[in-house]
Amino acid sequence: MICPSAALVIIGQELLSGKVKDENVGYLTEQLYALGVEVKRVLFVPDDSQDIVEALRWVVDRHDYVFTTGGMGPTHDDVTIAAVSEALNRPMVHSPGLELLLEKLYNVPPGPERSRLCCIPEGAELLYPENARFPQLIVGNVFLFPGVPSIVRKKFSALAERFRSEPIYSERLDLNRSELEIVLPLNAVVEAFADVRFGSYPQYAEGKETVYLTLDGTQQERVLDALSMLKRLLGVQ
Amino acid sequence: MICPSAALVIIGQELLSGKVKDENVGYLTEQLYALGVEVKRVLFVPDDSQDIVEALRWVVDRHDYVFTTGGMGPTHDDVTIAAVSEALNRPMVHSPGLELLLEKLYNVPPGPERSRLCCIPEGAELLYPENARFPQLIVGNVFLFPGVPSIVRKKFSALAERFRSEPIYSERLDLNRSELEIVLPLNAVVEAFADVRFGSYPQYAEGKETVYLTLDGTQQERVLDALSMLKRLLGVQ
Repeated sequence: MICPSAALVIIGQELLSGKVKDENVGYLTEQLYALGVEVKRVLFVPDDSQDIVEALRWVVDRHDYVFTTGGMGPTHDDVTIAAVSEALNRPMVHSPGLELLLEKLYNVPPGPERSRLCCIPEGAELLYPENARFPQLIVGNVFLFPGVPSIVRKKFSALAERFRSEPIYSERLDLNRSELEIVLPLNAVVEAFADVRFGSYPQYAEGKETVYLTLDGTQQERVLDALSMLKRLLGVQ
Repeated sequence: MICPSAALVIIGQELLSGKVKDENVGYLTEQLYALGVEVKRVLFVPDDSQDIVEALRWVVDRHDYVFTTGGMGPTHDDVTIAAVSEALNRPMVHSPGLELLLEKLYNVPPGPERSRLCCIPEGAELLYPENARFPQLIVGNVFLFPGVPSIVRKKFSALAERFRSEPIYSERLDLNRSELEIVLPLNAVVEAFADVRFGSYPQYAEGKETVYLTLDGTQQERVLDALSMLKRLLGVQ
């Protein structure tokens, strides 16, 4: 299965201490998959510049898109923008547009704080989607989002069409058997369809194990053929 | 703040396509933090042996504990145990105890499938906690859990006391202000208390921004002193 790939870098100490439960991974992975983009890596790191730089350097050249969440505010623990600048070797430069926004919209007085907040990596794109409170920052293939889930949803929706690729077709088969009972037929189909991805997910309810299988691929016909073979070998409709 | 560190390696294509929402990161991070263990990294990778090996090698020497979830069943996409063996350079060896369990408890007939399922990395520990359906596998500092959240909870609970360390003290301060309004006093306290960790979390409700601050440290007195200074500078009770 060949499609554009993505990595998520989820930034925030609060998520590593369990004080806040992440709500962005589930949303972003699902949205990207529906657009035909495969998330291949998710990394959670603390609000530490060196940790973020290391994570970004690990993923940025290996994926078509990288999405960060968190660390975008004005306080000491908001170090994402500077870390992206370091990871991508782009110096921080002053953005007059951002300074105007901070002055007029947020009434930030002039001073070192405002100067820091209106610096962005060289060559960064600033998009101003409608209804957005703050512009969207894009640096190379890195898309920077804040941590607040409702804002991530709003900002991602405004960009979503830019990521649309060939659709991924998915099928699902629910079975009233345990995983161990279906291993051999499943293995046979997996071997016959190298271009289809198979998942097997055991479920436990009332002391009984059942399983559902998933089949995914960029060629719908192949996915349906694999499903037919699987049903035939398992003797189900 | 110095305490034992941990990394989580979350294995499963279903979590990267958004078909299933992870429920283990929130649980494990919260439990470990309450036991005085800091999770420093979380990595999600697909059910691919090389991806899992790479992730494990990245974290295994840098953290006191590593926890994996997922990829522990009998199907083609269950490759975690073999990947742990490769990442830690421990050959796979036959476990007579596991073979007996597979034969007697699960009625797995003899054959290549059963042989594969009863191989574990050399020197692995197999624990048999009460009420467990299947033993707990530990390889060096790597603790292997399945993906199913209810089983992770049961298995982690049985092991939890082994991880207990010095407690981490936490305080929280809710403020009816925006982050931008509290930056300067917060920065002053952050500088004065290098041994306390501060978090700042903006909240948005009904078009209004508020913020809450968190203070964490292994010395309770220092956390309380930092909180006092913060309240004083902010002019709150």
